[in-house]
Amino acid sequence: MSVTELFRPDGVADDRDLQLTPNGELKHLITLNGIGKQRIEALLDHAEGYLSPLGEQAVRSNELQGMTVANLFFEPSTRTRASFDLAARRMGADVLNLDVNTSSRKKGESILDTLYTLQAMQVDIFVVRDASSGVPAYIARHVGDHISILNAGESNLSHPTQGLLDLLTIRRHKGKFENLTVAIVGDIAHSRVARSAAEGLRAMNVAELRLISPQPLAPDPASVPGCQILHDLEAGLRGADVVMALRIQRERIGSLDGIPAIDEYFANFGISRERMKIAAPDAIVMHPGPMNRGIEIESALADSKQSVITEQVTNGVAVRMAVLATVASTLSNS
Amino acid sequence: MSVTELFRPDGVADDRDLQLTPNGELKHLITLNGIGKQRIEALLDHAEGYLSPLGEQAVRSNELQGMTVANLFFEPSTRTRASFDLAARRMGADVLNLDVNTSSRKKGESILDTLYTLQAMQVDIFVVRDASSGVPAYIARHVGDHISILNAGESNLSHPTQGLLDLLTIRRHKGKFENLTVAIVGDIAHSRVARSAAEGLRAMNVAELRLISPQPLAPDPASVPGCQILHDLEAGLRGADVVMALRIQRERIGSLDGIPAIDEYFANFGISRERMKIAAPDAIVMHPGPMNRGIEIESALADSKQSVITEQVTNGVAVRMAVLATVASTLSNS
Amino acid sequence: MSVTELFRPDGVADDRDLQLTPNGELKHLITLNGIGKQRIEALLDHAEGYLSPLGEQAVRSNELQGMTVANLFFEPSTRTRASFDLAARRMGADVLNLDVNTSSRKKGESILDTLYTLQAMQVDIFVVRDASSGVPAYIARHVGDHISILNAGESNLSHPTQGLLDLLTIRRHKGKFENLTVAIVGDIAHSRVARSAAEGLRAMNVAELRLISPQPLAPDPASVPGCQILHDLEAGLRGADVVMALRIQRERIGSLDGIPAIDEYFANFGISRERMKIAAPDAIVMHPGPMNRGIEIESALADSKQSVITEQVTNGVAVRMAVLATVASTLSNS
Repeated sequence: MSVTELFRPDGVADDRDLQLTPNGELKHLITLNGIGKQRIEALLDHAEGYLSPLGEQAVRSNELQGMTVANLFFEPSTRTRASFDLAARRMGADVLNLDVNTSSRKKGESILDTLYTLQAMQVDIFVVRDASSGVPAYIARHVGDHISILNAGESNLSHPTQGLLDLLTIRRHKGKFENLTVAIVGDIAHSRVARSAAEGLRAMNVAELRLISPQPLAPDPASVPGCQILHDLEAGLRGADVVMALRIQRERIGSLDGIPAIDEYFANFGISRERMKIAAPDAIVMHPGPMNRGIEIESALADSKQSVITEQVTNGVAVRMAVLATVASTLSNS
Repeated sequence: MSVTELFRPDGVADDRDLQLTPNGELKHLITLNGIGKQRIEALLDHAEGYLSPLGEQAVRSNELQGMTVANLFFEPSTRTRASFDLAARRMGADVLNLDVNTSSRKKGESILDTLYTLQAMQVDIFVVRDASSGVPAYIARHVGDHISILNAGESNLSHPTQGLLDLLTIRRHKGKFENLTVAIVGDIAHSRVARSAAEGLRAMNVAELRLISPQPLAPDPASVPGCQILHDLEAGLRGADVVMALRIQRERIGSLDGIPAIDEYFANFGISRERMKIAAPDAIVMHPGPMNRGIEIESALADSKQSVITEQVTNGVAVRMAVLATVASTLSNS
Repeated sequence: MSVTELFRPDGVADDRDLQLTPNGELKHLITLNGIGKQRIEALLDHAEGYLSPLGEQAVRSNELQGMTVANLFFEPSTRTRASFDLAARRMGADVLNLDVNTSSRKKGESILDTLYTLQAMQVDIFVVRDASSGVPAYIARHVGDHISILNAGESNLSHPTQGLLDLLTIRRHKGKFENLTVAIVGDIAHSRVARSAAEGLRAMNVAELRLISPQPLAPDPASVPGCQILHDLEAGLRGADVVMALRIQRERIGSLDGIPAIDEYFANFGISRERMKIAAPDAIVMHPGPMNRGIEIESALADSKQSVITEQVTNGVAVRMAVLATVASTLSNS
């Protein structure tokens, strides 16, 4: 039995139902799949309120005062953890950072026992990152009613706050989604960033969504309904309003049959200023970070005016504050 | 000269005297041995005030506002550290988490120099965990008058806040101690949890205290006066009001002459629903965590109504808040 | 191209100019070189306000309320990090502690991308430690206008807050600098502590500054203008008002031609009570910590009344609070 089967047993209700209360309030955030346009818009509107001009101090609130947030990272992370950490602390929460090595998990306590222990310490919100599919939903199905689970990255499947920050960044530059052509370029098959962005963009009724990768890194078409799967970068970039380059794992390049070596990767799938001329004149360039400059993205493009990469980071904190505030309010009402 | 001799030189006053001021106020918490029934009851009463119903927010206070607590863990820990961390922060303290690898300790700074450095940074309370016997008392004898030392786990010798949380859990279920029969089962010889629980239970005048283990894991009788040492689980459980299973180190099972292999261990010393029928009908089941389900405790029993295991965790935070508040008050009065 | 060349390209303005605003306010603290007597005195005066008698609670303020401080340590540190952490938290800042392994830095994100990411999360002040020369200045030249960089240890080149805490400690014992003879003893060549102390002491117009070391550990005379370079300990200590022993890296002793073995090192360059008789009768003994007792300093001397070593630690927190308050005020005014 694979880990996926373990955590996603047949017959269990879909994650979409899991994340809402009977009243339709957001309780857990596991996936953007099925979360709905209206709820996404409310989160983006809420997040706008946590943005301040760069150079001014970060926005603070006391909406999480008295609450405890645990960052439970079974997979290492610096930037996502820092983003959630700051988001929670700027809202007045106590934050517990726990790095739990997966190998120690095997020997020792089960995931649920770790959860039950922290729940008994009156942690209110768990931010969970895990390399296995299904862990956040599995946890959400087992914790107490007064607890909220936020997915901070799950296998190659879901990274919903990343999806939301991408949507917020696009909306702040483009206003509406309905007429946009969005191109996502790179290792689509292994990218939870691409999956969550695609789920969010489809929910927002984007006009055209193109997923561009070398053949062996293309997604299963069934997993990305409504998207075009392409293997030619120029065709993919033509007229695009938004271009998102994904981080490629260096160890993956050249190691699999049909995956190009590093120079060849940049030549065929790297986004550059030159290549961006094919896109719409006012196209923006996105990247979830950390970047491999010169591999999936030309360094000068990353630093150009078209790039909104650091804005994505800023929007990430705001979006996480909005999600935290939303689930905290759901917990308080229940 | 062994480490124990190093830290427990002849002629030094007993740890019991060390932990009280001349006025009898609690200054350091090193051991429950000799601390006295009245003082334990006061701590348990105090801890009750920090409990809130599960599902409600954690209790907070500002009793440690302006104080600095350093968690100085020379031995790794997730749950005890998290518990002390949350306890201190919910009372308004600044908390400094320091993981000090024992090997680096050997090469580098001596324990006392580390302490003196942190003391000079105006740390008020040190929470110390160490694999060697005598370290917390050794430190307490050397720090300044305005500093408090709390033992968060010391070799196989002492873990006093664990002892207090066990007492609080028992008291909340059983009311009085005088008529109780308590059975502690597992690797008694190497367990600081068992030692501190036994010290606390004897102080509370428990009717009968049984320590049950395979022969090679039995304690030195001199170290546990007033306890029955048993090697037959059924005899030990008969009529017991409280049954506490200890975590067994897997690496220890089957490795020493006379210690049973893993299946045999569960068969002979594992606590199960079936076996609990020998105990009193309303007996409670405890475990300090993390559990090896299916080894020292049957998984279904751990999740049953008899189990108070997650309550122990909740009570742990409350007890640590009570201890912190008590020593903080002692420091303020001096 | 060496790392130093990389980070200190020709033609770039000196670090001294970098750290001040056009109005002469302190914006970054990279080096004490060129910072000026008046500005140092203001920082020391400011730091005095953050000192409280040992045994009383640490001084607190809300001068950094709403600000975010990131401790970005590319080189491990316990004490300097704890000191900056407490300094920032006692002033009300949110503190993000990031240990970035240098090897992961090579594979992954560039230093600047890490910085830009954290800057986009609205970190206001970065405390940076790095084993390479030029990193703090390099960063300071690239971050946004609304960001401040504090050097917490840079190669063998600069450790300015250590220099300031040494000055504060000397001033509190000796009052004025103009008549003092200061002797710094040990591995001068590799010591950023010695470099920053020398820069600070020269700025304060100390009467005589002696750098004493075995021949192979002597500094480049050009790097320490105005200092006497000596190889005879007794000559160096004669009449000194202040004696500062440096930590020697054990792996360095005996490993290089002409560097004495460990016993020989203590015999020739270790500071002892006996040797201190050559110094001024009221001379003070300093050490930046952590100490190798019995190597560069006699253990009994470190614990004697002449020693001001733990005061240095206390003054370190105060000096860092003063630096943080100063740059925070500069950021607020800009």
